[in-house]
Amino acid sequence: MKLLIVGGVAAGASAAARARRVCEDCQITVFDRGEHVSFANCGLPYYVGGVIPDRDDLLLAGPELFRERLNIDVRTRTEVVSVNADARTLSIRDLLTGATAEVRYDALILAPGARPVTPPLPGLDLPGVFRLRTIPDATKIKNAAAHARHATVIGAGFIGLEMTENLRALGLDVTLIERAPRVLPPIDPELSILVERRLVAHGVDLRTGTSVTGIEQTDAGLLVHADADIPTDLVLLAIGVRPESELARDAGLAIGPHGGILVDAEMQTSDPHIWAAGDAVEVHSLLTDHWQLLPLAGPANRQGRIAGENAVRGERDAVVFRGVQGTAIAEVFGLAVGVTGASEQLLARQAAIPWGRVDLHPGHHVGYYPGSKTLSLKLLYRLDNGRVLGAQAVGEKGVARRIDVVSTAIQLGGTVHDLAESELAYAPQFGAAKDPINLAGMIAVNNLRGDLPLDAWSTLGGPPILDVRTPKEFADGHIEGAVNVPLDELRGRMDEVPDGPLHIICAAGKRAYYATRLLRQKGKDARVLSGGMKTYLALHEAGALPDAPGPV
Amino acid sequence: MKLLIVGGVAAGASAAARARRVCEDCQITVFDRGEHVSFANCGLPYYVGGVIPDRDDLLLAGPELFRERLNIDVRTRTEVVSVNADARTLSIRDLLTGATAEVRYDALILAPGARPVTPPLPGLDLPGVFRLRTIPDATKIKNAAAHARHATVIGAGFIGLEMTENLRALGLDVTLIERAPRVLPPIDPELSILVERRLVAHGVDLRTGTSVTGIEQTDAGLLVHADADIPTDLVLLAIGVRPESELARDAGLAIGPHGGILVDAEMQTSDPHIWAAGDAVEVHSLLTDHWQLLPLAGPANRQGRIAGENAVRGERDAVVFRGVQGTAIAEVFGLAVGVTGASEQLLARQAAIPWGRVDLHPGHHVGYYPGSKTLSLKLLYRLDNGRVLGAQAVGEKGVARRIDVVSTAIQLGGTVHDLAESELAYAPQFGAAKDPINLAGMIAVNNLRGDLPLDAWSTLGGPPILDVRTPKEFADGHIEGAVNVPLDELRGRMDEVPDGPLHIICAAGKRAYYATRLLRQKGKDARVLSGGMKTYLALHEAGALPDAPGPV
Repeated sequence: MKLLIVGGVAAGASAAARARRVCEDCQITVFDRGEHVSFANCGLPYYVGGVIPDRDDLLLAGPELFRERLNIDVRTRTEVVSVNADARTLSIRDLLTGATAEVRYDALILAPGARPVTPPLPGLDLPGVFRLRTIPDATKIKNAAAHARHATVIGAGFIGLEMTENLRALGLDVTLIERAPRVLPPIDPELSILVERRLVAHGVDLRTGTSVTGIEQTDAGLLVHADADIPTDLVLLAIGVRPESELARDAGLAIGPHGGILVDAEMQTSDPHIWAAGDAVEVHSLLTDHWQLLPLAGPANRQGRIAGENAVRGERDAVVFRGVQGTAIAEVFGLAVGVTGASEQLLARQAAIPWGRVDLHPGHHVGYYPGSKTLSLKLLYRLDNGRVLGAQAVGEKGVARRIDVVSTAIQLGGTVHDLAESELAYAPQFGAAKDPINLAGMIAVNNLRGDLPLDAWSTLGGPPILDVRTPKEFADGHIEGAVNVPLDELRGRMDEVPDGPLHIICAAGKRAYYATRLLRQKGKDARVLSGGMKTYLALHEAGALPDAPGPV
Repeated sequence: MKLLIVGGVAAGASAAARARRVCEDCQITVFDRGEHVSFANCGLPYYVGGVIPDRDDLLLAGPELFRERLNIDVRTRTEVVSVNADARTLSIRDLLTGATAEVRYDALILAPGARPVTPPLPGLDLPGVFRLRTIPDATKIKNAAAHARHATVIGAGFIGLEMTENLRALGLDVTLIERAPRVLPPIDPELSILVERRLVAHGVDLRTGTSVTGIEQTDAGLLVHADADIPTDLVLLAIGVRPESELARDAGLAIGPHGGILVDAEMQTSDPHIWAAGDAVEVHSLLTDHWQLLPLAGPANRQGRIAGENAVRGERDAVVFRGVQGTAIAEVFGLAVGVTGASEQLLARQAAIPWGRVDLHPGHHVGYYPGSKTLSLKLLYRLDNGRVLGAQAVGEKGVARRIDVVSTAIQLGGTVHDLAESELAYAPQFGAAKDPINLAGMIAVNNLRGDLPLDAWSTLGGPPILDVRTPKEFADGHIEGAVNVPLDELRGRMDEVPDGPLHIICAAGKRAYYATRLLRQKGKDARVLSGGMKTYLALHEAGALPDAPGPV
């Protein structure tokens, strides 16, 4: 049994190792166009910034280890030119010698990955304009940065943000350009705005809603053409990646609607002798039931493992990939931003799902223990059955942990009732007796039970607003037109409370909850603005409340 | 409707607040014997050690806030002397004036908490011998510590360990005495030994397996009588707590087998007008299906909330407490130790459950990103259906996060297959493309599928041991009698591999896995010693392998 694997990084290396563990007697060969296999591509930005000091730290396993430990033949700098699916052969070319050859396979795994998107703009091939995919790419950027004073990062996705941080760490001034209105387009605006605040606080020249029209070489360096021209020494193009599916397409394999290789749950392509895994394939979304691209290391490694097993499984049962729910995290200037499952933007396009939203801003651990950091958490769930749909979180501490709990709950079909009753690890330095996850679940359950009706922020501007903070907090800034009756005086000042549907707001939601319970029992149709002024100000700053009254 | 609540700390305060939110017109009164209500009892050790500098930081909500915000009457320093369940009255006594009164209730919630266990030993009432339950207790210890050079902590549970750390932080020499063979008796020995190593490394005079027989006042200070006498200046008794169920017992309420107040899922006692919550009640274990005591803040707060709602719910549906799975965490000298679900010790007593175990020691994040810390993780699961039963983890970083993921999986009936495929938040500073949770799940699945049979450590001493580490690692220490063939040379040295059932070991398990897969495909009955030499040495040091060959 002869297994060939195209691509030797995350998915390809995982596939190779798993195939060996399943089939000791198979002949396994890995081809990679690049200089390195099994390198830490997620570490590249941190190698550029010097956080990871040694290039060799990025090399997780070299050809020697593959040979000695796994009896796998790894051929680097070898391009696979074409796949002849009928004959079950590959045409390969040695990139050093130019020599070509045909090699036969019984099973083939395609794991070529994805390449940076390069739009048809003038100047993208100029020296000083970089993309980041490989260790040599990172080394080139590192060398260029050593002689640069200003860098321009085009694209504010996860990699663009990580590169911005690392170029700042090298002492460069950085302009970060994003075509979308906000950084991190998959994150909802009132949370991505928190990341923008952090970028600006760290001296980043942030230009969202800005399109680049080209790059020009001048005597002084490079000039990035955008709304305003940006003189710069170094440009990093980080506007996303697209699957390297040309080989598969040319071989006649089915390609998905987004340009990735189509595979079934066993990671098998439309050809029964070919499997595929990693950034080059389309994945099934457990949230939308559609195919999508999700170029992330976790799914790539798990898919590779599955493809490797199924390609050589013999009499064994096939293993399957369950699909993706889109868990991701990044950190920029000490602020983590994480997501799992559906975002509000995604749900807004899914008309059939009745969903609700909870916003909260608790400490990542109890306030009385030193070092508590605000965790801004947004939970999305189904209004009909309470199932958890997604979460996003931004904060300096505790983000990954809460995202992982929600991710596990989504995976297992958990509801907000389950989150309310989750038994999570608590000691003062680790959380709270009611963890942020419990609180989010409790608020959602209160809403579902009708105890605490939550108002959509889009309804702001309609009913009167009752602000139950202290007069001092109110004087420091409130929503235009809001009436102020502090919670602690509410029972004695009921006559000041307007009638009819009523928005209740406080700093972050807790006092509004108390006030709403009180008012509803007194016959008022009170509803909470979840997340309070913190969420309001973030939404307003993010431009997500165009028709609502502004802050005064 | 008149609701009375006995006890105003975690469960009592939660119950009061929830009752008010459900019933604005109820008359709610909270009685507490102590000086303070709603204080941060989990923070007391850190107040003693100065980590929490200000006593007022521990006061989460005083009587004034209860009155103004919640219209709740809080009576501190008021003892409830008896409950007359037939007449629905309480006899109360003002501890300052001695005045007594009878008060009537429609609904009563008992949340008196638990008190430190005080065994019948001579000398426990001497000055200088303390228990830690209240803020005044903490203040007394803090004052005594200021004039002490040596402290003795009796009991190495979570509070004993936290107090040991905090007394060391004050510069005291500390002797820590535990009657059980290991610290943290609920944690399995090969993990609690890691905590013991940390205690000793921080200068703690640790004496496990040691019983105290009494304490004596001498001219020089106190003398703790144990196997050897320990001269000391200050003694903290931290051998656990027992429920304050006397009031309930005297009122004729049903008491559980462990001495706690018996309640149903609605937190209702055997009297239809009385509910109970917090450390004084017995809880239903979701793991053993038995009643048990679990005096922890998280369950107490959630129970209080449920009792508060049900006591005043009127026409609303009752809410229920789902039971406990025993999630807990503590940190000592920078090392966190967490647990959720069943331990091996517990499972060893549950004959009907066929269970398996996985041990691993991965980094808490990828090794190539600076600052990776070893996370020792133990996963327990059912061999018949793969359901997750429990986990324990020890490490400097990432412990709470992994315990919470497993806790959520247990709560929702997840299996090791689910853990293998969990989509967790990954970036280099936050984990790994295959998170420790994924790895634990994958190893367990490999075992269930028969790919990677895991040997019980108790079988050590039977079959031959093949150690697949490098000769240098082997020379630095191995199990007596083990044969060394490095993994990378295994294919060429198959003739040196013994026949028959065979234990395979390496440093932490990964190379043993590769070797086992190879050997099994070559017809050998190879089985992995999960967790490798790290787990072996911990088990051996903990005395858990009395009949196995020792290290050489």
